[in-house]
Parts: sequence; structure tokens; C-alpha cells
Amino acid sequence: MDWDNQFAERALKMRSSVIRDMLALTERPDVISFGGGLPGPQVFPIERFKKACCRVLDENGELALQYGSTEGYRPLREWIASQARQYGVKVGIDNVLITNGSQQALDLIGRVFINPGDLVATESPTYVSALQAWRVYGARFISAPSDEHGLVVEKVEEILKQRPRFLYVLPNFQNPSGTTLTLERRKQLVELAQRYQIPILEDDPYYPLRYEGESLPRIITLESAAQPESDDVYNGNVIYTSTFSKLLSPGIRLGWVIGPAPVIRKLSVAKQSVDLNTSVFVQMVANEIGRSGFLDEHIQIIRACYMERRDMMLETMAEMFPSDAVWTRPEGGMFLWCRIREDIDASEVFKTAIQQNVAFVPGEPFFPNGGGKNTMRLNFSFCTPETIREGITRLGRVLKQVEYE
Amino acid sequence: MDWDNQFAERALKMRSSVIRDMLALTERPDVISFGGGLPGPQVFPIERFKKACCRVLDENGELALQYGSTEGYRPLREWIASQARQYGVKVGIDNVLITNGSQQALDLIGRVFINPGDLVATESPTYVSALQAWRVYGARFISAPSDEHGLVVEKVEEILKQRPRFLYVLPNFQNPSGTTLTLERRKQLVELAQRYQIPILEDDPYYPLRYEGESLPRIITLESAAQPESDDVYNGNVIYTSTFSKLLSPGIRLGWVIGPAPVIRKLSVAKQSVDLNTSVFVQMVANEIGRSGFLDEHIQIIRACYMERRDMMLETMAEMFPSDAVWTRPEGGMFLWCRIREDIDASEVFKTAIQQNVAFVPGEPFFPNGGGKNTMRLNFSFCTPETIREGITRLGRVLKQVEYE
Repeated sequence: MDWDNQFAERALKMRSSVIRDMLALTERPDVISFGGGLPGPQVFPIERFKKACCRVLDENGELALQYGSTEGYRPLREWIASQARQYGVKVGIDNVLITNGSQQALDLIGRVFINPGDLVATESPTYVSALQAWRVYGARFISAPSDEHGLVVEKVEEILKQRPRFLYVLPNFQNPSGTTLTLERRKQLVELAQRYQIPILEDDPYYPLRYEGESLPRIITLESAAQPESDDVYNGNVIYTSTFSKLLSPGIRLGWVIGPAPVIRKLSVAKQSVDLNTSVFVQMVANEIGRSGFLDEHIQIIRACYMERRDMMLETMAEMFPSDAVWTRPEGGMFLWCRIREDIDASEVFKTAIQQNVAFVPGEPFFPNGGGKNTMRLNFSFCTPETIREGITRLGRVLKQVEYE
Repeated sequence: MDWDNQFAERALKMRSSVIRDMLALTERPDVISFGGGLPGPQVFPIERFKKACCRVLDENGELALQYGSTEGYRPLREWIASQARQYGVKVGIDNVLITNGSQQALDLIGRVFINPGDLVATESPTYVSALQAWRVYGARFISAPSDEHGLVVEKVEEILKQRPRFLYVLPNFQNPSGTTLTLERRKQLVELAQRYQIPILEDDPYYPLRYEGESLPRIITLESAAQPESDDVYNGNVIYTSTFSKLLSPGIRLGWVIGPAPVIRKLSVAKQSVDLNTSVFVQMVANEIGRSGFLDEHIQIIRACYMERRDMMLETMAEMFPSDAVWTRPEGGMFLWCRIREDIDASEVFKTAIQQNVAFVPGEPFFPNGGGKNTMRLNFSFCTPETIREGITRLGRVLKQVEYE
């Protein structure tokens, strides 16, 4: 059968993620990769995880291995809601949906909000897999630029006037740029979104991964504080998503959405036909670990580990990169962003780099409407400091060589 | 914000599953429910599962808790391919995709094959969550009726002439009807699908759950046998999906698709933006258990348990149900199908039954284009034999009472 003639139009437009395909090239063991968005495996709490698996199976095996409700395992939803109340959002269990990683949250939000041809407003650059998820639903993108303090809010009003379905923001240690939105800008965003009645989708996978400076309130917290006192559950216009991937493990595929109850209900109906429910076993394991308070200690280990790696990357870049390259200095997260000489194409650099056994992700795919050919995203969480030093040294040599040619 | 005005058109058409909503009514502990499609929790291999979790984490923790490839964990794909070769399908790893339960397979197939307004051919009645998944993509349904030997193949040719995107069939112990397609009809289906060049989607979650009679070859096996000798990988027009849910646990959400490589590639690209990948940890646990040969022994325990339950249900129905009710006698699986007096509406019976603390699923939602008001699906895998006896006795009383009124 000629399958290419059998696929739906939607499928003909689907393209494999440029990044996933590039990363396939970097799977050779001799390649030092700054390309992926992987946690450092050294920080996975394997023993604690094992203990939780045993405990869940010993105490509640029949429940853990059975089908569950689409919205998620009740005690886990309650725990996430209680965490959210601690950071100032008035939510109950009806405001929480458990997802199969936060990528599923992005997909479900596209499914529920985007008509073919609709506008979605984003930062530029922004998380490439969100763009990929929403293109399937026919989204077109309008975007506002970022500087070293995140989204340039002054440019947001004009895009909100075009009435996008929602505004997508990663306020903390943004992927790909590593920047953090200032408090002042967060407040302005809340005010703008209220004035124009446009939902904000706050994607916040890295919040606890802060290595210096003060944590800033989440956008949903600021928005909840602006609600009338009389409202006793969250009814604002921010939809918030986060994940266990960075704090516990991405190998369990566990994320969540916090939002107004009507949105959670609609996302749940959408999730029914997508995969019935998220693994109950995995939810119970995360719930056991979360409620034990372990993650509050464990985050210290992750922070110390990633800060050392970030510092090594920044230090080696300062030493080895050509003088006309500039880069962000992230206060947390897993990525930094580098802009090389204007006339140099990062995807050409990639080809040379891979021959020298070092990899990164060219920045262009992160721009919803093109541009950024001379940018690159570098991940600092995955490799050890020694490997980072070696890899950045190689990459510096490659960049100088390409500039010289 | 008025959220109802914010949702996309697609979302406005989404309806919560009638069954899931009804089942919510049956969650009271005093209700005996034949409604869900749940395995009996008594057969979950909790200790074996625990052992596998520990072993995977001890030996390969860093890999298990990391992100993985979208196509799935390579050794698990290889194992599934080797199983498929044993049942006569010439496949390699490129013919296998791991999914987050087989519901995800159904959703991805909808995403990849269905344009808004396209026809999909099904049995009538058929699996309701498949209908729900494909309606989101704008499918319209044409269907052929079933009798006690499954899909009436004589009626299939006329629907294939209308050129549906694919024909959806559950050949073994069908959900909801419990019927099994005869060998002769399977062969005719393969021949018809080849003649009209229409893909067959073979959904086969219950294959190993056979309690009597001989196992029949899968449709994909018959189709593979009909390929030219020279083809060394599967290149036919059957897409096959199955799951670990019935054999191991539905709480791990693990299924798979076997199909021609171009289809697997396209489904993988679709899966990228949906959830990046299926839990590596869970895949490794299933791989450990699968390769150990444990499931071959464990299936004996499941068969013995469910056969006893099926027999108790059939026996009690014969005793207690009104004489004008007729039902299927499934050779395996988890469901049987009952047709009550023509003028009686099963959803009215449901209301009376729930007051008597017994529940089932009215059959109408399983008919893609309406009908079947006087039908009901009864699950026999979840309740113990004693509870089945009590529940069927209650339901018999309810049916007689409703008939008498």
C-alpha cells in the first residue's frame, strides 16, 4: 500500500522535531552533547524512588495497578493543590489535572483552545515543542521579543490587541533563553491579560531550580492575589503547568495543570479519549515521595550540582568562545542561550561541531516565525563539569575556526 | 472570564464519556458494578511487579528515570517484535511503536489518518472510546452489523466501496459484544481489504484471555502469510494494536502498535508533540517481566479466575434473567452482551438497577450511528463469583420488575 497517500492532511504537515532528529546524531558515546534538555542522571533519587515503589505496592498494590480516574489520583491532586495554596493560589482539587508529563498539558491545551488558523501569542524565542504541539491544531503564532529580563512586556499589548487564544510564557529560566521575567514585568502582564481578557498559559517546569537570587512569585500567584477577597476558589485567567521531570524524574512522565475549574473539566474530557488516565502506579509513587518532604531536601542536591555545571560552562565560555559571541547568565534552570556573529549560521556550526564530537541545538526552531539563525541553546544540566569544560573548549575552537573561514 | 466562550469548536463538541459518567454513580462501595472494563485486582502480580521495579532500579536506575526515545525502549520493542514473529508476522523493531496504553494508539491513529468529515468503518456495536477518540478528529462512521460470530463480513464489501480511511475490528472477545470472528470471516476480511486497498485496524487487547476453544490466527498473521515470500519485513495493510493492561496491569498504561514502517514513523512523529515519550521506567519493568517468561505462567491464573467468573455469570443469568432476554456466550475476554425485550430501554433499567445497587453499561453508546436501546454490556472480570451471583440476581429482579411494569 502507498501509505503516503493514506495519511490525513494534518499528518502530512507533521514534521519530526528538528531537535530530536539532530539529537539522534549525538547519541554516539564519544559525542559531548549540550543539545538535549536532560537532567543530570547523577541527581536521580534512585534509592528513594525504589523505596516508594515498594511501599506503594506493599500497601496499595491493587489500587496502584488498576485503571484510575482521568483527572488523576486524588491524594496527588490534593497534595498539588495544597502546595499551590502555599504559594498563594486559592485552589482546591477541582483546579488540578494530572498529565502524562507537561508536554501532554501543552497538547491538551492546544486541543481545547485552538481552532485552525487561530493566533497564539508567544515569546520569541520560545519552547519549540509547544510550537510543534500547537501547529498540529492549526495555530498561527504572533510573538513579542525577549531581552535579558525575559519577555519585553511593552511589546505585548500590541499582540494582545490581535486577540490571540492565549499568551504562552515561561517566566523562570526560560527554555531556550535561560532568562527570568522581572517582578515588574510579571505584574504588567497580569494587568494586561486582565484588561484584554486573554488567558495566560504559564509553563513553569524549572521553578525550584534557582541557583542564585530571590525566587519571584509565579504569575498565577500575582493573579490570584488580584482576585476579589470574596472568591474562595481560583477563577482567574492564568493556566499554570509544571512537572515532576526536573525535580524527581522525567522517566515517569508526570506533570500537572492548575487552572479555573471549567478549564480543568474541559481538559479532562479531552484527556479521556487521548489515554483514559495517567499511570496510577506512577502517581502513587510521586505522591508518596512528595508528601514525605523528601523533595525539599533533594532540591538542595540538584541545585548544588547544576550550579557547579552552569558555572563551569560560563567560565569556560568566557575563556574559549570568540569575543563577538554573547550569552545569557541564567539564575537557574538548565539552559543558556548564545548569540554568535550575525553572519554565521548556527546550523552550519552544528555540522562542524558534530565532526569534533560536540553538539548543541541551533536556535532557529525556537523562533515561531523564523529568525535567530545565529543563535544556539546550550544545556548545562546533563554533562559533568569535566565534560562541560572539554566540550565547551571544543565548541570554542569550532566557533573560532568557522569565524576564521 | 467566561471560559465557555474561550474554547475551540472542537472542544465544544467534546462530550464526557457516557460510560465514565455513569460509572461515577457506581463508585459507592455498596454498588455491585458490571459496568467498567476493569481486570480483577486479585490477579495483579504485585510481588513480581515489585521485584521487577527493584531490579530495574538497581541495575539501570539512571536509564529508567531519564527521558527516552519517542518510539519506545529498544529492548521492549525488540521483544514485542520477536513475539510477533512467533505468531507469524515478519516484523522488526521499525514495525513497533510503544504507546501510553492502547487508547493512545487509537488517538494517534485518528490524528494521523482522519480528516474532518472522513468515513471510518466499524463493527456495530464497537468499542465506544475509539468512537470518542475519532469524533474529535471529525470522523463520520459507517458500520456493518455483528452476529454471534462477530462482524458480518458479507455486509463489509458495500461499506468498503464507500472508501473509509480504515476498517476498525476487534476480532477476539469483542468489546462490547464478547464475540469472536471466525477464521473463515478473518480470511474474507483480509481478502476484501486487499482488494479495496483499505487498511484494517486490528484492536486486540484480549487475545490471551481465552477460556475455551482454539485460538485463531490474528488478522495481521493471515495478512502477513499472504505477502510475497520475497518481502522480508511486514508491508501489509493491517495495523495491529494491543496492550499490557489485561495481562499485567492497566495501572502502568502501556500498549503498542505493530504496522508497516511508514505508519509507525508517522505515528511516532505524532506522538512527539503529544507526550515526548512513554515512561521509560514502566517500559523497562514490563520488559523485565515479559522477557522472564513470567506472563506465560501468569496467564493461566488469569484464565482460571475469569473463566470461573464468566461461568458464574452465565449460570446465574440463565437462572434469574427473564426468558425473553438473550446474551452472548464469550469464549474469552471480559464482557458479555445482553439483548432485552425490544420495547425496554436499557438506560431506564440502569436507573432502577442503580437504586438496587447493581450497575451495568447500557449498550446504545457502542453503536456508532445509534440504535441498540435494548442492549447492555456486562463485565465479568472485576467482581468475585459470589458478588457476580448476588449482582446478577438483583439485576434479574430489576429486569423482571421493569418488564412487568
